[in-house]
Amino acid sequence: MSEEIQKTMQAAVLHGVHDLRVEEVAAPGRPQPNEVRVQINTVGICGSDVHYWEHGRIGDFIVESPMVLGHECSGTVVEVGSAVPDLKPGDRVAIEPGVPRLSTPASHFYMKRGEYNLCPDIFFFATPPDHGAFCDYVNHPADFCFKLPDNVSLEEGAMIEPLSTGIYAARVAPIVTGDTVVITGAGPIGLMNLLAARAAGAANVVISDTVEERLQMARQIGATQTVRGDAAELKAAARELTNGRGADVGIEAAGHPSAINACIGAARAGATVVLIGMPPGDTAEININDLIVREVKLRPIFRYNNTFPTGVNLLASGRVDVKPLISKRFSLKETPEAFEYVVANRATCVKAVVDVG
Amino acid sequence: MSEEIQKTMQAAVLHGVHDLRVEEVAAPGRPQPNEVRVQINTVGICGSDVHYWEHGRIGDFIVESPMVLGHECSGTVVEVGSAVPDLKPGDRVAIEPGVPRLSTPASHFYMKRGEYNLCPDIFFFATPPDHGAFCDYVNHPADFCFKLPDNVSLEEGAMIEPLSTGIYAARVAPIVTGDTVVITGAGPIGLMNLLAARAAGAANVVISDTVEERLQMARQIGATQTVRGDAAELKAAARELTNGRGADVGIEAAGHPSAINACIGAARAGATVVLIGMPPGDTAEININDLIVREVKLRPIFRYNNTFPTGVNLLASGRVDVKPLISKRFSLKETPEAFEYVVANRATCVKAVVDVG
Amino acid sequence: MSEEIQKTMQAAVLHGVHDLRVEEVAAPGRPQPNEVRVQINTVGICGSDVHYWEHGRIGDFIVESPMVLGHECSGTVVEVGSAVPDLKPGDRVAIEPGVPRLSTPASHFYMKRGEYNLCPDIFFFATPPDHGAFCDYVNHPADFCFKLPDNVSLEEGAMIEPLSTGIYAARVAPIVTGDTVVITGAGPIGLMNLLAARAAGAANVVISDTVEERLQMARQIGATQTVRGDAAELKAAARELTNGRGADVGIEAAGHPSAINACIGAARAGATVVLIGMPPGDTAEININDLIVREVKLRPIFRYNNTFPTGVNLLASGRVDVKPLISKRFSLKETPEAFEYVVANRATCVKAVVDVG
Amino acid sequence: MSEEIQKTMQAAVLHGVHDLRVEEVAAPGRPQPNEVRVQINTVGICGSDVHYWEHGRIGDFIVESPMVLGHECSGTVVEVGSAVPDLKPGDRVAIEPGVPRLSTPASHFYMKRGEYNLCPDIFFFATPPDHGAFCDYVNHPADFCFKLPDNVSLEEGAMIEPLSTGIYAARVAPIVTGDTVVITGAGPIGLMNLLAARAAGAANVVISDTVEERLQMARQIGATQTVRGDAAELKAAARELTNGRGADVGIEAAGHPSAINACIGAARAGATVVLIGMPPGDTAEININDLIVREVKLRPIFRYNNTFPTGVNLLASGRVDVKPLISKRFSLKETPEAFEYVVANRATCVKAVVDVG
Repeated sequence: MSEEIQKTMQAAVLHGVHDLRVEEVAAPGRPQPNEVRVQINTVGICGSDVHYWEHGRIGDFIVESPMVLGHECSGTVVEVGSAVPDLKPGDRVAIEPGVPRLSTPASHFYMKRGEYNLCPDIFFFATPPDHGAFCDYVNHPADFCFKLPDNVSLEEGAMIEPLSTGIYAARVAPIVTGDTVVITGAGPIGLMNLLAARAAGAANVVISDTVEERLQMARQIGATQTVRGDAAELKAAARELTNGRGADVGIEAAGHPSAINACIGAARAGATVVLIGMPPGDTAEININDLIVREVKLRPIFRYNNTFPTGVNLLASGRVDVKPLISKRFSLKETPEAFEYVVANRATCVKAVVDVG
Repeated sequence: MSEEIQKTMQAAVLHGVHDLRVEEVAAPGRPQPNEVRVQINTVGICGSDVHYWEHGRIGDFIVESPMVLGHECSGTVVEVGSAVPDLKPGDRVAIEPGVPRLSTPASHFYMKRGEYNLCPDIFFFATPPDHGAFCDYVNHPADFCFKLPDNVSLEEGAMIEPLSTGIYAARVAPIVTGDTVVITGAGPIGLMNLLAARAAGAANVVISDTVEERLQMARQIGATQTVRGDAAELKAAARELTNGRGADVGIEAAGHPSAINACIGAARAGATVVLIGMPPGDTAEININDLIVREVKLRPIFRYNNTFPTGVNLLASGRVDVKPLISKRFSLKETPEAFEYVVANRATCVKAVVDVG
Repeated sequence: MSEEIQKTMQAAVLHGVHDLRVEEVAAPGRPQPNEVRVQINTVGICGSDVHYWEHGRIGDFIVESPMVLGHECSGTVVEVGSAVPDLKPGDRVAIEPGVPRLSTPASHFYMKRGEYNLCPDIFFFATPPDHGAFCDYVNHPADFCFKLPDNVSLEEGAMIEPLSTGIYAARVAPIVTGDTVVITGAGPIGLMNLLAARAAGAANVVISDTVEERLQMARQIGATQTVRGDAAELKAAARELTNGRGADVGIEAAGHPSAINACIGAARAGATVVLIGMPPGDTAEININDLIVREVKLRPIFRYNNTFPTGVNLLASGRVDVKPLISKRFSLKETPEAFEYVVANRATCVKAVVDVG
Repeated sequence: MSEEIQKTMQAAVLHGVHDLRVEEVAAPGRPQPNEVRVQINTVGICGSDVHYWEHGRIGDFIVESPMVLGHECSGTVVEVGSAVPDLKPGDRVAIEPGVPRLSTPASHFYMKRGEYNLCPDIFFFATPPDHGAFCDYVNHPADFCFKLPDNVSLEEGAMIEPLSTGIYAARVAPIVTGDTVVITGAGPIGLMNLLAARAAGAANVVISDTVEERLQMARQIGATQTVRGDAAELKAAARELTNGRGADVGIEAAGHPSAINACIGAARAGATVVLIGMPPGDTAEININDLIVREVKLRPIFRYNNTFPTGVNLLASGRVDVKPLISKRFSLKETPEAFEYVVANRATCVKAVVDVG
C-alpha cells in the first residue's frame, strides 16, 4: 500500500442547473484506518440526481458549490485501511451511500437505536454538500461496503441502493406472506418496491400509474394487476382481490397528494400505507377522517437502514432479478448525455447506469 | 329469574337537534343466553353525545329516528343469561359499549385478529341506529361487561370508557417507560390520555390548549408542563425536555388541522403521533414532507379494543385516579339540563355524569 | 334445504390402540344458523392422528371413547345456516379445524386479542373428546370454512392445515426477506415450514434430518442446503451462509431435546427459535446460559391462528406448491391401511391423504 | 487542558480469589477525541464483582491477570476530548459500562441494528480482560456518559446501571400498563426489576424469594404481593390476581432451574418470561411441553441497550426511587471490607456502594 496513488480523477460535477461537467478533480488520498478505497464500477442515475440537475435543489437541500452527483454505486476495493477486518483489495462491493457522522448527541441516539438513517448529521453521497460517486474513486467506511458474491455482477450490485427503499418499506410496513399490496407510481422506486414486495411474499401486487409503458414493465417483473385509471379503479381492484376489504399494505411512490389519498383509499381498515414519494409542495391535503375511522396508519420512510445485507442475499439467491430494470448504459464521459436521455425517456427508461470502470 | 320484569323504563331520547327528552320507552326483555341484564347506575356525557344533540350527526352517522344517547356507563347485573359463566346478579360492572355483530366476513376477519373495533358491523351504544345507555336497563353480552372490585365505585367504573382511548393510545404508540409525550388538546379526551400516559410510565407529559382552566386541571392530574401558546412554543417545550430532539410520542386530541401539524412538529424524528381528534372537515393539510424526512408516523385510532381489563386494573390498583375529572352530577330526569350545562361550561366542566340508578 | 338429509354416514373411528374401524355413524343434523354442512372431500393423515392410533393418547389428551380421527380437511358446502353471509352450496372450502367455544372468560380474553388458538375451551377435530373429519359430512362454523378459488383443488385445500404451522411460524418469528433459516426435522411439519419460509422471503433455508430421503425431498421443494449430520455440522452450515453469525431464525420441528439445542446452536445472537416439535418427555435439558449470553429467544407455537386466508392466497397465487408433498392416496374404506402404510413408510411418505368424496 | 494530569491513581484490583487489593496503578492518559475523562464518584458492588472475587471467573470469562473490578459507576467529567459535542468539565454523569469496539463485521451488524449489547467484541468494565471502575479516573466514550440533572445525585446515578436490566426487561417483554408481573428472586436484580416494572405501569407485581428480609424490602418499594413458598404458591398468587389466567409477564432473576420453571408455571398462556439469572450449570431442565401447549415465550436478556437515557429520566422525574436500595457505603480503601460485608449480609444488603470521590 505504499505505492503512489493517483492524485486526480474524472468526475461528473454539477456546477449549476443543467450544467453537469465531466472534469478532472482531486482524487481521495489514502483511506482512513476504517475505510476502504473503492474504484467505482457502476453508478445508477436516480431521480434525485436528475432533480438536482434540473432544479439545483431538493427541498431544503441546495447545491451551493460544485458537487459530484451519483449515489447508487458499486466498485472494486483497491486499498484497505489498517483497521478493516474483512475486506481486501479485489473484493467487489455494493456501497451504502449514507454514513452517520456521529458528531452530535442526536446522531448517537439514533445510531444506537438502529435508526441511523435518522441521524441529523448523516453523510450521504450527492446530497449537498457531500460529493457523490460519479467518479473513479471513493474512500468509504468499510462497514458500509458490502461484498458481492461471485454470482452477482457489479452492475446488479449498484441496484441494491434503489432496491433498498423497497426492502425497507416491506420490512417496516410490514408486508407478510400472502398480503395484497397496492403501489401508487410505477417509476423506478415503485418498480423496485414491487420487486421487494414480491420477495417479501406478497401474493398480489396491484400497481398504478398513468403511463402504460411503465405498467407493462410492472407486469413483466411480477405485478399481478396494473391500473391506469383513477383512485376509484385502484380501490375497486384492491377490494376485488381481498373479499371486499382492501389492500393489506399500500406503498405510495408517486409523490402526488392525489396518489397519497388514492393509496389510502385502496387500503383496508387497519392497513399501513408507506409514504415514500415527496409531493412538490411541502404539504398535502389528506383524507384525515378516513384515516381515523378505518385506522389506516401512515408510515413515512426516509431512505432506509440495514438493507444492504438483505439486498445482497436477495440478488445472490436469485429471489430478486434487477436486470430487467436496467434500461440503458453510458460511459462516465457520457454522463451529461445520460441525464438528457433519462429526462427525454421517462416513460420507458427505468434505470440508466453509468459504467465508470 | 322467572319473575316478572318491568316492561317499560325511563330513557333520555334524542328526537332532533337540541331535542332531548326523558320519557318512557320499552325496557329490554329477558337477556339472551350470552347476555346479562344490567341496571344502569352512571353514564358519563361524552363530546359525541353533545355533538349528536347539537348537530344530529357526526360525519356519516346520522340520527334518523329517536335514539337513546349515552355510552360511558356502568351498572349492576340484575339477571344473567343461561350461558354466562362468570357474572351473577349483584355484580357491579363497567360496560364496554362496542360489540361486533359478526354478521359479515370482514367482521370475522377483524375479530379474529384482535382488532374488533374495526368490525364494520359493530354495535355501539348511541351510534345511530343503535340505542345508548341513558336509561334504566340494558341487555349486553356478558363478555363486554367487566366486574368491578369492591374498591372501585360505579361512578369510577363509568370512566373506563373515556379512559380507554388513552389506554389504547399508550399501547399502540407505544409509550414506553421514561418517554416524553406531548398532547394537543386538554379536553376530556386529552386529559384521559394524560392519565393513561402517566400510568404507562411517561416521564414528561407536555399538554397544550388555548383554555387556561383546562391546563390548570392538567397540571393538577400530572402534566409536567403545559403550553397555552402556539406550535412553536409546544415544539420548544418538547425539545427542551429531550436534549433538543422532540417528543417520543405525540397524541392529537384537539381535532384541528393546526393542532395535528403542531403535534407533528413537536415530535422527534422517528416518533409516532397518535391521531384521535377528527377535524371538522373531512381533510387536513398535513406537513407531509416533514413527516417523510423525519419519519414521523401517524397512527390514527378509532375507539379502542381490549382496554377494559386494563382500565379495571388501573383503577383498582390506584395507578389512575379519575375522580378529579368528574365535574358535575345530574339525575336521569335532568339529562337535558346536563347537556345545556356541558355546553355552557366547556372550559371548566371536564366530565359531567348522570346518576341513573 | 327442507329436503331430507342422510341420517347416517361412514367414518373412520378409533376404538383403541391400533383399532381403527370404518363404520356407520350418525350424520350431523341441520347446520346451526352460523354453520355450513360440508361434504368432506379430502383428509390428510397427520402425525397426531397416527400417534393416537399407536398410543391412544398425546400427553394429557386421552382417547377415552370411540373418536373419529382426521383434521386436515376440505370439502364442498352442501347446506348453509340461516345467518351465513358469504358461503353457498357448491362452494369448495378448506376447513380450519379449531374453533373456540367461547364458554369461559379466558376464552373470550384470548379470542378478543386475536390469539384464539390459546382459548382453553377450543374445539378441535380429532382431539379428544372432539370428533374429526374422516367421515362424509361435518357441520362447521362458516367463518372457519375458507372458499377455494377455481385454480386450487380440494386436495391442495386440505394441505392448508399442515401448511398453517409454517405460515404461523414465519409470521411470529418473524422471517423477513433475505433471512437465513435453519429447520431441524424434515418430516411433514419441517417440510411445510420449509415451503412457508421460502414463501416469506427466506434467502437460505438449511434443513437437517437423519433420513436421506427426506432431505432429498427438501432439496426438491426449495431447501438451499441439507444437513444429515449432527449439531456441529448444522451450526457450521448456518455460519458459512451468514458471514459467521448464524441463522436469523430457527424452526424446531423434530421434537427431540438434542434437536432443540442444535437449533439454538445454529441460530445467531438475537435470533428467534420457533419451537414446534414436542419432545417425548415433558421436559428437555436446554443450554440456558447459551440462550442468555446470546439472547436467543424461544418462541413456542401451539397450532396457529389467522393462517387460512394466507394459505388460500399462497396456493392461489402459486407461491407455494404443496402437490409434491402428497405421497399417496387412499379411499375412506382404506383408512386403516393408510395408517399402516404411513407407519411403514415414514422415510418416504410425506403426506398420505384419504379421498372421502 | 494542557496542564499536567496525575500519572497514577488508586484502584481496587482483583489479584486472585479473595485477593482484592487497593493499590496504586497507572492512571489513564489524555482522553481520545471522542472520550471524556471522568473522576469516579460512586461505584456499586454487583453480584458479578463478588462472583469474580469468590471464584475468579464467570462461565467462560476468566480473570487471568490482575483486574480492576466495578462497573456500576458515576462521576464528574474533568476533561473532554476534542470531538465531544455536549459534555464539559464539571458535568456529573452516569457511565454506561459496555462499549462496542466495532472491530469485526458482526459487531457492526449488531450496532447498526440497535442491539449493540450483542456485539461480540464489546468492551465492558470489569469483564476480563477489561478493567473496571473501582478507581479514581476512567477515560470513556462521551456518548456512553449521560449527564445527570441537578436533582439526581451521583450516588443515584451509579444505580442506573443495575436498574438498566429492569428497564430493558420491561421494554422487551414488554410490560404494558395494567399488567400483572411475577418476579422470581428478590436480590438486587429482582428488586431493580420490581422498580422498573412498576414504573412501566404494572398494576400488580408478585415477587418470590426464600429470604423474608428481601421480601420485606420488596413490599417496601412497591411489590403488591410477596411469596416465600414454592412454585405452586407463586402460581396460585398469579392466578388469583388475573381471573385465573396467570401473569402477563414473568421475570426470572433467581438463576435456578426450579425458579425458571416456577416463573413459567406462574405465567399465563401467551405470556413472555424474561430470563436474566444464569443457573450455575450451563443447562436447565425446562418444562418444554408446557411452554409449547401454552405458547409461553422465553426472552433471555444479556445486559441491556439504550437504557441510560430512560434511567436518567426515571430518576429525574421521581418515577423511580433507588435510594432505599442503597444499604451501606464504603470508601475506596475499604473496598475489600465491602466485599466481605456483602457476602456476610446477603439477606439484608441489597446494594453496597463505594464512595470513591
